[in-house]
Amino acid sequence: MPSTKKQTKKRARDYGINIGQYKPGRWNSITDVKGVLVGHSTIIEGEGHVHKNGDGPVRTGVTAIWPFHHNIYDERICGGSFILNGAGEMSGMIQVQEWGMIETPILLTNTLSVGTVSDGCVQYLTQKHPQIGRIHDVVIPLVGECDDSWLNDIAGQHVQVEHVFEALDAAKTGPVEEGSVGGGTGMTCCDFKGGIGTSSRKLPVEDGGYTVGVLVMSNFGEIEDLKVDGTPIGRLLADKYEHIKKRRHTYGSIIVVVATDAPMLGNQLNRLAKRAALGIGRVGSYAAHGSGEIVLAFSTANRLDRHEKKRLYKMDVLYDKGLNPIYKATIEATEEAILNSLFGAEDMIGISDRLCPALPKEEVGVLYKKYQDAVK
Amino acid sequence: MPSTKKQTKKRARDYGINIGQYKPGRWNSITDVKGVLVGHSTIIEGEGHVHKNGDGPVRTGVTAIWPFHHNIYDERICGGSFILNGAGEMSGMIQVQEWGMIETPILLTNTLSVGTVSDGCVQYLTQKHPQIGRIHDVVIPLVGECDDSWLNDIAGQHVQVEHVFEALDAAKTGPVEEGSVGGGTGMTCCDFKGGIGTSSRKLPVEDGGYTVGVLVMSNFGEIEDLKVDGTPIGRLLADKYEHIKKRRHTYGSIIVVVATDAPMLGNQLNRLAKRAALGIGRVGSYAAHGSGEIVLAFSTANRLDRHEKKRLYKMDVLYDKGLNPIYKATIEATEEAILNSLFGAEDMIGISDRLCPALPKEEVGVLYKKYQDAVK
Amino acid sequence: MPSTKKQTKKRARDYGINIGQYKPGRWNSITDVKGVLVGHSTIIEGEGHVHKNGDGPVRTGVTAIWPFHHNIYDERICGGSFILNGAGEMSGMIQVQEWGMIETPILLTNTLSVGTVSDGCVQYLTQKHPQIGRIHDVVIPLVGECDDSWLNDIAGQHVQVEHVFEALDAAKTGPVEEGSVGGGTGMTCCDFKGGIGTSSRKLPVEDGGYTVGVLVMSNFGEIEDLKVDGTPIGRLLADKYEHIKKRRHTYGSIIVVVATDAPMLGNQLNRLAKRAALGIGRVGSYAAHGSGEIVLAFSTANRLDRHEKKRLYKMDVLYDKGLNPIYKATIEATEEAILNSLFGAEDMIGISDRLCPALPKEEVGVLYKKYQDAVK
Amino acid sequence: MPSTKKQTKKRARDYGINIGQYKPGRWNSITDVKGVLVGHSTIIEGEGHVHKNGDGPVRTGVTAIWPFHHNIYDERICGGSFILNGAGEMSGMIQVQEWGMIETPILLTNTLSVGTVSDGCVQYLTQKHPQIGRIHDVVIPLVGECDDSWLNDIAGQHVQVEHVFEALDAAKTGPVEEGSVGGGTGMTCCDFKGGIGTSSRKLPVEDGGYTVGVLVMSNFGEIEDLKVDGTPIGRLLADKYEHIKKRRHTYGSIIVVVATDAPMLGNQLNRLAKRAALGIGRVGSYAAHGSGEIVLAFSTANRLDRHEKKRLYKMDVLYDKGLNPIYKATIEATEEAILNSLFGAEDMIGISDRLCPALPKEEVGVLYKKYQDAVK
Repeated sequence: MPSTKKQTKKRARDYGINIGQYKPGRWNSITDVKGVLVGHSTIIEGEGHVHKNGDGPVRTGVTAIWPFHHNIYDERICGGSFILNGAGEMSGMIQVQEWGMIETPILLTNTLSVGTVSDGCVQYLTQKHPQIGRIHDVVIPLVGECDDSWLNDIAGQHVQVEHVFEALDAAKTGPVEEGSVGGGTGMTCCDFKGGIGTSSRKLPVEDGGYTVGVLVMSNFGEIEDLKVDGTPIGRLLADKYEHIKKRRHTYGSIIVVVATDAPMLGNQLNRLAKRAALGIGRVGSYAAHGSGEIVLAFSTANRLDRHEKKRLYKMDVLYDKGLNPIYKATIEATEEAILNSLFGAEDMIGISDRLCPALPKEEVGVLYKKYQDAVK
Repeated sequence: MPSTKKQTKKRARDYGINIGQYKPGRWNSITDVKGVLVGHSTIIEGEGHVHKNGDGPVRTGVTAIWPFHHNIYDERICGGSFILNGAGEMSGMIQVQEWGMIETPILLTNTLSVGTVSDGCVQYLTQKHPQIGRIHDVVIPLVGECDDSWLNDIAGQHVQVEHVFEALDAAKTGPVEEGSVGGGTGMTCCDFKGGIGTSSRKLPVEDGGYTVGVLVMSNFGEIEDLKVDGTPIGRLLADKYEHIKKRRHTYGSIIVVVATDAPMLGNQLNRLAKRAALGIGRVGSYAAHGSGEIVLAFSTANRLDRHEKKRLYKMDVLYDKGLNPIYKATIEATEEAILNSLFGAEDMIGISDRLCPALPKEEVGVLYKKYQDAVK
Repeated sequence: MPSTKKQTKKRARDYGINIGQYKPGRWNSITDVKGVLVGHSTIIEGEGHVHKNGDGPVRTGVTAIWPFHHNIYDERICGGSFILNGAGEMSGMIQVQEWGMIETPILLTNTLSVGTVSDGCVQYLTQKHPQIGRIHDVVIPLVGECDDSWLNDIAGQHVQVEHVFEALDAAKTGPVEEGSVGGGTGMTCCDFKGGIGTSSRKLPVEDGGYTVGVLVMSNFGEIEDLKVDGTPIGRLLADKYEHIKKRRHTYGSIIVVVATDAPMLGNQLNRLAKRAALGIGRVGSYAAHGSGEIVLAFSTANRLDRHEKKRLYKMDVLYDKGLNPIYKATIEATEEAILNSLFGAEDMIGISDRLCPALPKEEVGVLYKKYQDAVK
Repeated sequence: MPSTKKQTKKRARDYGINIGQYKPGRWNSITDVKGVLVGHSTIIEGEGHVHKNGDGPVRTGVTAIWPFHHNIYDERICGGSFILNGAGEMSGMIQVQEWGMIETPILLTNTLSVGTVSDGCVQYLTQKHPQIGRIHDVVIPLVGECDDSWLNDIAGQHVQVEHVFEALDAAKTGPVEEGSVGGGTGMTCCDFKGGIGTSSRKLPVEDGGYTVGVLVMSNFGEIEDLKVDGTPIGRLLADKYEHIKKRRHTYGSIIVVVATDAPMLGNQLNRLAKRAALGIGRVGSYAAHGSGEIVLAFSTANRLDRHEKKRLYKMDVLYDKGLNPIYKATIEATEEAILNSLFGAEDMIGISDRLCPALPKEEVGVLYKKYQDAVK
């Protein structure tokens, strides 16, 4: 299981690609928001063709995010969301929208494993909180998906309940492994190998000093669309990768999870989630008809105790005028998280020996630098 | 398995309760909309206490609706939805909202079995269409839920994939079994035994001649709230049932599925779904904070072929001014479907010998008649 | 101008019609929520035909609500909304939805005077706060409408800026005049004379002790639809009023304004507004295709100072589990406010000698009592 | 009145800035969509300070769009919308969302003139269709706004009904005047003089051959944010314009109108409108908290006759898989329309001798070319 390996890969920033005006947090990761824990379960097995659903190569997995330590069921937090294009799924979103609150872990996997992962999460939570459904309320897990069927025998439904437990148990703070791990194992982005990526921003004190962290599971786009900080890298690379063009699918998706410690309410978090969509757009997405481009956002600042007995409580709320730096930081971190999902991945061979190439990182770094130098 | 029994129970209408101005269709059921098929898998086992999640009494199941024959994956139809209160789940709704289209069966079950049922539906569909996720697109099943934990060992997650297959395979046209069957097996409504109910309306030719059918899984409300065609039956019965008051929970839900053969588009179906919410309200729901009151609506009139090669197609569309009779019919059929879910159920004993009484049907019929006679 | 007359008419409650379980506040009016002020400007002139737009009978006006005293521009409050059917207008709603906040008065008028009333409100506010648009932000007034063209020469656009000033200046606490006043002057409801109506509920201490007030401008429905506390009064009266049937229009609308002193946030107020829609439904509306059924809700509990310099503030928030009594109270008060709009109105003759009859109040009271007595 | 002047200014494309992959239509304007007519009324008067609201410099106006010739009231078309940030107003949007239809002209002006412009549009339409509000339905005009108070004496409300008539009457096909005209007269964008801009794309036959046209009224952003086709032009120019920094406001807005002849329904147009938001984001907007970033979209392909007597009609509908090229074209045209609003404007001096500089067009062209040449 690679999910405990130390993060040593070079990331976008290591190639001189510094997105935006704000600085990243300590790990440049969603885990820079205190209390956010991330874990992966990666399943890579077999090769060759799918003769029958289930006997093909497996390139998939589960990524788990605990939004605020392990007790999210009891210590709930504010949440919101935005759907840029809804050809996808984030089960449990209806309740997030109704209550402006999150009370379960967030899990990312492939499209046809949403049911199993939801089931696994229920099993995990009912073991941990045996009074769920007896004395206390039932739960509806948050499970987001992208379609990894280009590389993975998706109809084989290889994710099992044990993988959900593994990802949930593996979750921790600190650096997050990126690229072809967890739910992102079999994903492709702009025709390159994508998957999990993360980034963060720490606002200066005069802007509130808050942290924003973003984690993506990237699976959208075509090579020509790819932009790196506005630079049309994809267009520049397209010819060289023309031979892989036939392999591309017109569909795709991205799940974005935004975390912040700024005290924001549900409605504010819906608004924040929209800004992540602008970040997706900056990397080149036009939110294709068949794409599930879904953003979930949460704030760890206020905890809503399930066992609260009072009728009234006090909430810390960020004054709306203080939102703008957080908006900017979210766009920046989303853009960089997507780039990190590309920089974090290596070539992968999947179903029927299809090769999904890694982004040519050195070349991208060079091209980017040329652009930056052009008008110094 | 009771799911193939003939429907012989007396329904609301058999007690002289005729809701609204329009006449029901042949079976007074959602299956009056041609092509709609309904099947149940009912799981009733054990009695006594839950000592450990999984060893308690089972009172649950799965109800399956094929919106238009068995080939909904290839022959998709228009769909819409409305969320009156979103403390619940209808997985797959995001895509219905994005595309205004339905491409999977609709399944109803208990809250903690949504994952398993979704998984089961994926297994069913990938067996039936082995090219899902390989040549053709993946699918995201529509799975709605209510919380049956008052009677059922819900955390035991007793629904298995085989039950999903059973419900999908059992689905047929004709009368639909009501009350404590399928997904409705363990549900309660206004402190009485609820569950599955259905009703339909056939518009006269001058209003277009269309059929509207509604199926509900009812699980909301408190006895005092219950109204039958405006008559405050619940208030009249409340004293008599005071001894069961302690057993009541403040949470609840209802899933409503509306079918019509009127040619309506996604946006029109969203609007139609709102009218079903008015029907819920008429039975007495105030859409409690913890209630998942979710409506899904579809029209069988236009089929959207997955394998369509043309860029343009022609759709039959109902002129907006023709919507009003369908709106009225939907409110009427929703109200009657909820009543039928009560009239279709018998006393049930669940977890820890809790008795959920059936609606005292004869008494309700008598009380209702008195009201009607009062101002003849 | 009748807008300063004392309220002495008999209201629904004076006929023994007591909707729901909770008690009204002191005035059974939206003004029972402390700080809410209501004023009317009523324009009744001329009779006969419209030969040319502008020369016909005038039966219209403006109703103004200050949500919290007169300084709403500086001391803003939380707001939300719900659109049951959107064939209508509440200008300014986009901003309420974005910010969850209200910062202007709320004005109600006829459809073709929304522009003038919005303009009048801007003039009023820029006179009162000359720094709007210079040092401080611009404003977008909240102006709701219904179509009074059955009785009023609507295309004559008889509402002037002075009427807006008059309504805003006349606004006060205490009893609110009902029926054919202000924006409600020319409105009809279920084929009877409708217009402005109001009601309130004061929750008992154990439910939080909060007050909910509702004000409606009613203009929807057909006689057969009218229900009074579930009793099908409209159906019983329909024959007698058959001669007026030809006059009926299939279109209609209702604007509902809900006020509360419970500390609720924007998202909670959106939810509250949905419950008012259930109240509309209980009186008989099916939310016709051409109807603008729009609800605006606000809470006076937290004030959001425009000149706030802090980044963070504390908000009092009602715990979600405390919402249910407020939901119920809102449905009850909405239903009663609509009834009061009918009970508050007298016969009116409008364009082309069209008679819009008042609800036959005594008869309704008798019919209602018969029903109530039927099952004592 | 400059609104009839011929368009001879150099536009973004004349500086070598070619956004995206698709080619513009004949006029690179929203009027390339057949039937779309655009007219301006520009009001420029006075200079110096505002001593009292109304006596200050006037830099404002009205832009009118007839979505499909002059008879939109009778020959309605499909419409949709998206709100990226709702700190602004597009009156009439509620009905567009409900019906998926547009039945009035679209007007753009300053924030405090929305009421007058709405009133003016009603006057125009009731003169043209005297049976509005008598035999036929009332109308709710679509009026969008941005806040031009940096340059314009906005609280003076200088727009009069006659300006609305002028803009509506001036509307025509062919080239559209850009920059400081009509509703855009006093607007600023990224600290430069903005206002009205337009662009179009004509899809190749293999993508359906449809035309997409976009018109914007730009009023958002700060200089550092400005990107031209991904190139960080604003950052490069920021130092040079540091002296104007104090003048900048943190608020702003943009209204985007998207037209197409592709046969798209209301829900599809809502989705299309979201893509315009991605275009706004590409120019550098982060959709600030105080910004009204509102998109309206319509399709001229299906006409919905107000006087239709049939219950059913046939609609041409674009198959969803054909949407992607239109999505891309919309993003491209939105980006270019915003740039054209900047390239079309000259320096303007407004209130208190504030200078809003034109974009340094030649310099931008040179910087842009350097970037493009960097990696040939």
